[in-house]
Amino acid sequence: MADAPVDTVASVPVAVVGAGPAGLMLAHRLGRAGVGTIVLDTRTRREIETTQRAGILEADVARDLVETGVSDRILRDGHEHEGTELRFGGRAHRIHFKALVGESVWLYPQTDVFIDLADARERDGGTVHFGVRDTEVLDITTDAPRVRYTAADGSRHEIRARYVVGADGSRSMCRDLVPEERRTRYGREYPFAWFGILAEAPMSAPELIYAHSEHGFALISQRTEAVQRMYFQCGPGESVDAWSDDRIWETLQARVAGEDGFRLKEGPVVEKTVLRFRSFVQEPMRWGSMVLAGDAAHTVPPTGARGLNLAMHDVKVLADVLLRALGREGGAALDAYQPRALQRVWRAQNFSYWMTRLLHTAPGASAFDLRRQLGELDNVVGTRAGRTYLSEQYTGWPASAQD
Amino acid sequence: MADAPVDTVASVPVAVVGAGPAGLMLAHRLGRAGVGTIVLDTRTRREIETTQRAGILEADVARDLVETGVSDRILRDGHEHEGTELRFGGRAHRIHFKALVGESVWLYPQTDVFIDLADARERDGGTVHFGVRDTEVLDITTDAPRVRYTAADGSRHEIRARYVVGADGSRSMCRDLVPEERRTRYGREYPFAWFGILAEAPMSAPELIYAHSEHGFALISQRTEAVQRMYFQCGPGESVDAWSDDRIWETLQARVAGEDGFRLKEGPVVEKTVLRFRSFVQEPMRWGSMVLAGDAAHTVPPTGARGLNLAMHDVKVLADVLLRALGREGGAALDAYQPRALQRVWRAQNFSYWMTRLLHTAPGASAFDLRRQLGELDNVVGTRAGRTYLSEQYTGWPASAQD
Repeated sequence: MADAPVDTVASVPVAVVGAGPAGLMLAHRLGRAGVGTIVLDTRTRREIETTQRAGILEADVARDLVETGVSDRILRDGHEHEGTELRFGGRAHRIHFKALVGESVWLYPQTDVFIDLADARERDGGTVHFGVRDTEVLDITTDAPRVRYTAADGSRHEIRARYVVGADGSRSMCRDLVPEERRTRYGREYPFAWFGILAEAPMSAPELIYAHSEHGFALISQRTEAVQRMYFQCGPGESVDAWSDDRIWETLQARVAGEDGFRLKEGPVVEKTVLRFRSFVQEPMRWGSMVLAGDAAHTVPPTGARGLNLAMHDVKVLADVLLRALGREGGAALDAYQPRALQRVWRAQNFSYWMTRLLHTAPGASAFDLRRQLGELDNVVGTRAGRTYLSEQYTGWPASAQD
Repeated sequence: MADAPVDTVASVPVAVVGAGPAGLMLAHRLGRAGVGTIVLDTRTRREIETTQRAGILEADVARDLVETGVSDRILRDGHEHEGTELRFGGRAHRIHFKALVGESVWLYPQTDVFIDLADARERDGGTVHFGVRDTEVLDITTDAPRVRYTAADGSRHEIRARYVVGADGSRSMCRDLVPEERRTRYGREYPFAWFGILAEAPMSAPELIYAHSEHGFALISQRTEAVQRMYFQCGPGESVDAWSDDRIWETLQARVAGEDGFRLKEGPVVEKTVLRFRSFVQEPMRWGSMVLAGDAAHTVPPTGARGLNLAMHDVKVLADVLLRALGREGGAALDAYQPRALQRVWRAQNFSYWMTRLLHTAPGASAFDLRRQLGELDNVVGTRAGRTYLSEQYTGWPASAQD
């Protein structure tokens, strides 16, 4: 395959495998600096647009979408959340991010981030090929890596690049190209999953609610005035078919119930998915002329909303080092990528793990574990330092703690 | 036995089982208010004085020793520590308690706290019987509980009291008197222990050092100018006989080694002990006319130095409610004890668990666990909020977070 004839050969400084937010934002950032990219994805644009994913952006990430000229739609269609609610022991505790660390977060679904980025690529004349197949990344240990693929119409193509970026998500094929004996994979599985729904109902609360209960975790989120996104902890092998609307609402209501009489506003459930998750990091994040970014290099449990934000941070650093590598500094500039990215990756890994452990009920958890969790929640919300400690991790790290 | 003849019968408002710091401090506090106590312990004074235990007191606890008139010896022989050091990734990170939360802690061994309290009881004419045996606590579901015991000389005695306090430590016999079907015991075991030494050596550092390393945890503590106390994580079944001085020092040095070239000052090891620990809480903390305090009701892993401080907080609350219960309010005043004590108990349980998990290497821990721990340590020391979150838990909780 590597040398079979192709229909076209294109040359570009950077080939990007994966047209999710990480890949497209990298292409956008490089494009602004005059560096050409070709972005490929096996999925169609429609598939990506309709897959429900994360919904919370750090203020920095939201600002970058506007300030780098992707789109200012987030300012109109997004919702600024100045805080979030932790519910436990039947009571609500607000964490006021804005007052504590001076930053908000933005509720703006990943699907909208994708649409804005894909539209911006079209507007700016960037090349993105959706729905490709048979993608092969070749010669990454040389200075002339290639990517070959079959387009949706069946034609075969080759891209000749100086660098290839693997931004191909949590089932990355690119990361497998780092030789097994030279890579380390760090991981952790969890004995639970999330049952996610989209419901046609009014908002139950103005901000996200992270609920701890003896029955398990629940997350109450929002999408629009008319459609809401909610999750509850379930077994990793749970089947959506076993869950009627009634059973779903009963489960969610029990997990947010409290002495304040809080109730969710119910409505028809229009989408149901079981989301499994894990913690994962692969090192190195670079191999020869290939660099990994976002979920391809690391995935986190969804509790705490780090995944998309972490990916966007990766590509911010990566755009910077790629521009330097393509300029006077040469390839050595890329050496800075992994150390700059990894400190945040491990902080975010820990935060996501910690939020997950803090709020979920592990199967077989003892009465001690449950009471200790309540003691920890009490410690976190009980003082300004505790609330600040959570806030600065949730909103992204303050400048003083960044690279 | 309950009605066999005895040699003497004494009447006193409060009988206290256990002459450790909790029992003696309670007797001291009640004595200052004119309420008589008799305190019993199965151990001799010499045994208690020579058993190495905790060494760090919250500033509040240190102040109470002075201000309630126990002794001001801590001001001369104790050492105020304005902070502590976390060592990880081969580097030292100081947590400056005083600057962050306005409080220091005091290095003052539990044996000295005991000596001060036992001396104060003698000075103030309090009654403490050491070395008793066959202690029986009777009739606790009535308003006239009794305690019977055999004195060191073989004579039999009975104490008639209004209340009995079980301050008889982590192997409490009193807590077993709460009927099995009416009590809940919460607990957690740990797959490691501490190997503790006393060494004749100069101080290696002015403050405690909590060291995380891939080889396991170590704690560098001090006693006097000439004798130091140190610990390192070991297997729960470790035998002291397997450890020569050389092997001990080699192990400790490896766990504190770093890029700064830090080395411990070595000297002859004059005491070696393996300390097992667990997390434990029993509820209720009161049954009829009997009340539990300190380790009898709850024990914590030693990481974070909460145990003695928590016990001293228990008896502060308990002295207050006992005085009210013996006065105009009557027994109902005791109802306030458990809720006031428990919030701090569970916060401390969580803090001790968290510090333990943060710093120890669990057998079979994955590479992910180790890197995540470093990410968490990085989060904690990396911002003022993280350092403050640790400091306020380590120094005791700020007034705003207290009962």
